[in-house]
Amino acid sequence: MDVIDVRFPTSRSLDGSDAMNPDPDYSAAYVVLHADDGREGHGFTFTIGRGNDICCAAIETLSEYVIGADVDGPAALGDLYRRLTHDSQIRWLGPEKGVMHLAAAALVNAAWDLAARRAGLPLWKYLSGLTPEEIVACVDWRYLTDALTPEAALAILREAEEGKAERIAEIERDGYPAYTTSPGWLGYDDEKVVRLAREAVAEGYTQIKLKVGADLEDDRRRFAAARSAVGPGIRIAVDANQRWDVDQAVEWTKALAEFDPWWIEEPTSPDDVLGHAAIRKRLAPIKVATGEHVHNRVMFKQLLQAGAIDFLQLDAARVAGVNENLAILLLAKHFGVPVCPHAGGVGLCELVCHLSMFDYTSVSATMDDRVIEYVDHLHEHFTAPTVIENGRYRAPTEPGFSAEMKRDSLIRFSYPHGPEWRSN
Amino acid sequence: MDVIDVRFPTSRSLDGSDAMNPDPDYSAAYVVLHADDGREGHGFTFTIGRGNDICCAAIETLSEYVIGADVDGPAALGDLYRRLTHDSQIRWLGPEKGVMHLAAAALVNAAWDLAARRAGLPLWKYLSGLTPEEIVACVDWRYLTDALTPEAALAILREAEEGKAERIAEIERDGYPAYTTSPGWLGYDDEKVVRLAREAVAEGYTQIKLKVGADLEDDRRRFAAARSAVGPGIRIAVDANQRWDVDQAVEWTKALAEFDPWWIEEPTSPDDVLGHAAIRKRLAPIKVATGEHVHNRVMFKQLLQAGAIDFLQLDAARVAGVNENLAILLLAKHFGVPVCPHAGGVGLCELVCHLSMFDYTSVSATMDDRVIEYVDHLHEHFTAPTVIENGRYRAPTEPGFSAEMKRDSLIRFSYPHGPEWRSN
Repeated sequence: MDVIDVRFPTSRSLDGSDAMNPDPDYSAAYVVLHADDGREGHGFTFTIGRGNDICCAAIETLSEYVIGADVDGPAALGDLYRRLTHDSQIRWLGPEKGVMHLAAAALVNAAWDLAARRAGLPLWKYLSGLTPEEIVACVDWRYLTDALTPEAALAILREAEEGKAERIAEIERDGYPAYTTSPGWLGYDDEKVVRLAREAVAEGYTQIKLKVGADLEDDRRRFAAARSAVGPGIRIAVDANQRWDVDQAVEWTKALAEFDPWWIEEPTSPDDVLGHAAIRKRLAPIKVATGEHVHNRVMFKQLLQAGAIDFLQLDAARVAGVNENLAILLLAKHFGVPVCPHAGGVGLCELVCHLSMFDYTSVSATMDDRVIEYVDHLHEHFTAPTVIENGRYRAPTEPGFSAEMKRDSLIRFSYPHGPEWRSN
Repeated sequence: MDVIDVRFPTSRSLDGSDAMNPDPDYSAAYVVLHADDGREGHGFTFTIGRGNDICCAAIETLSEYVIGADVDGPAALGDLYRRLTHDSQIRWLGPEKGVMHLAAAALVNAAWDLAARRAGLPLWKYLSGLTPEEIVACVDWRYLTDALTPEAALAILREAEEGKAERIAEIERDGYPAYTTSPGWLGYDDEKVVRLAREAVAEGYTQIKLKVGADLEDDRRRFAAARSAVGPGIRIAVDANQRWDVDQAVEWTKALAEFDPWWIEEPTSPDDVLGHAAIRKRLAPIKVATGEHVHNRVMFKQLLQAGAIDFLQLDAARVAGVNENLAILLLAKHFGVPVCPHAGGVGLCELVCHLSMFDYTSVSATMDDRVIEYVDHLHEHFTAPTVIENGRYRAPTEPGFSAEMKRDSLIRFSYPHGPEWRSN
């Protein structure tokens, strides 16, 4: 197993800037599993700079569960996931949240990458080929059964068996709808926002996203400019990145209502289930979305139970990887809430499209109101980068989870000794 | 600043064993701040073994905010706390949860220790001498104002000004009530449970606690034995350490009801606000307690808003130290829920009694149904250890937060190179 601290100096150009994260350096705590057969499994957790080394150290601490482990097939991957998240001593540091959970995500995802490569399939297709029983056995049902039982999950998956082959063919032919956040970073001036918003529409996107929450008058001006640039037919979501308290979220969002926001994302603390529920109730019909910082399936369960969200934005590496995201997809389907994954950062687009495509083939069986976030940064560092055509993700075709970074990038951006960091 | 990984091999005797933590090695990620005036500030976060090194590394990462910082007075301590919890890049790893938050707790508590030492006062008395305005300025109000505003908090604190001098004198004379968990560890046999329960009553305790949740028949037998050993007049709390799902928590606790449990503690995931609310509703009049794993003030806010708990069990070093616990004490008072801190581990008794005593002098102004957990392990390693007399915590008199471990203990149990670990 190799662990690499990879950081990209994105703060130099204000790419990724928002109301809570003014100067992120998009980073990955990156892991490579080396299997006996010579194959590799790649995985990572995404961070925005400082503390990426702590995640790398946490991955090292968890390595005892991975080295020598069997990762062949969903049963083995389910066992590995449970061991990684239930070490009785390490669990004290969470449980199932923060640094240790991010580290578990990197390892779980690397193990699935390896398993899918061995099967010779892209992960979404590998998952789509598993039986309902195999999927259900991948999930840790602890703390979920008051909302969804394994039996009810089996029924969901069995129902979706019908038409699956057609949906797989459809994904391979047409891909999956995307929206883009690239025009809307808070550090961009109005002219750049307008230009990028127009380009997005010209490229086929039907939804874009703007960052808001630092200054209301700035937000109104930028939103107005973006709206008049793209016209009324394009969905514009806004994203406050946790900036507000409950009352402020309601007031601020209402002050943007005239520009027709499609959703308000992360209006307040990601921990605040009841706050999101209150905001949603008071803002209806404006929709509420959250998830990129929601730390585990128990929190998603409650957001759904409380009717707190209109869109569930899972993250590929915030929760403990593929296994925990399978639980989240099943919960979302059970509660009838569309999953619109968080992406961007580094490599998150590459990962989440596999999960949404599996959701379509095998869980929700619909793309209605579902879109995957897309941000056009840092894809050049991946060996099988995301391909967008006409505002849609193309289906990955390479075996694995698309998590592999190029060797040159791993060396150049390794922190703190890689050439990109030494020279600055 | 020094950071020391201290671990005690408690797993060898099954002290501290429960349904989720079969073999803890009580540990501290320990920090010493060295001030210009030659004084020191001591703080730590408690863990149960593996991963303690990750917390130490996280403390090192946060050191840039502490080294050179002003810690004189509550305003400076409020600024330090906010800087430690709001680094825009590190915040991504939480926010305000898990390893990075545990690390912030150690540093915040060390800074308060230093400030109280400089004032020549034990922390509880130093806090009791601050004005309502100073206390309110120590709190990070973000995400709280839908439940409690700074103005409402000020009103609480001003009301408690009356009679404060008398309550301080009372604390100094009579101390604060304790309960003991020492009889109830899951790894102990029935004979030991009965013997220790009888001893506890003989020592003046009016409440003890038993660990439950691994095996129902074992629980019933042990509970019956303990109940007949102590009689009906002693409160016996039971603690499941997060073992159950919602339905199971209700069924299992009902199966123990005939032995008259005073509260059921941690019946399910500490993240599950709605789950606790459902359990409390279905179990009434049996009371529900939680808090040792509740990771921040936003979660406590919701537990209170949802009516999910009868007792709030704050932890001195799970949330970000004194500052965040001030918010939690104010929230608990606002919602009328008694605070009964989590303690035990290593050094938690030493810390939490300061917070409960301040709660009595300056916030809730009552001890009704309030007790501080006590476990008689590892106090011998502290320079100003907890003193219990007749089932009550004596008021600490030494300046500071009572967090300082003896130099000999720090050396002997430092991990992995200390003599206690090298020889095993």
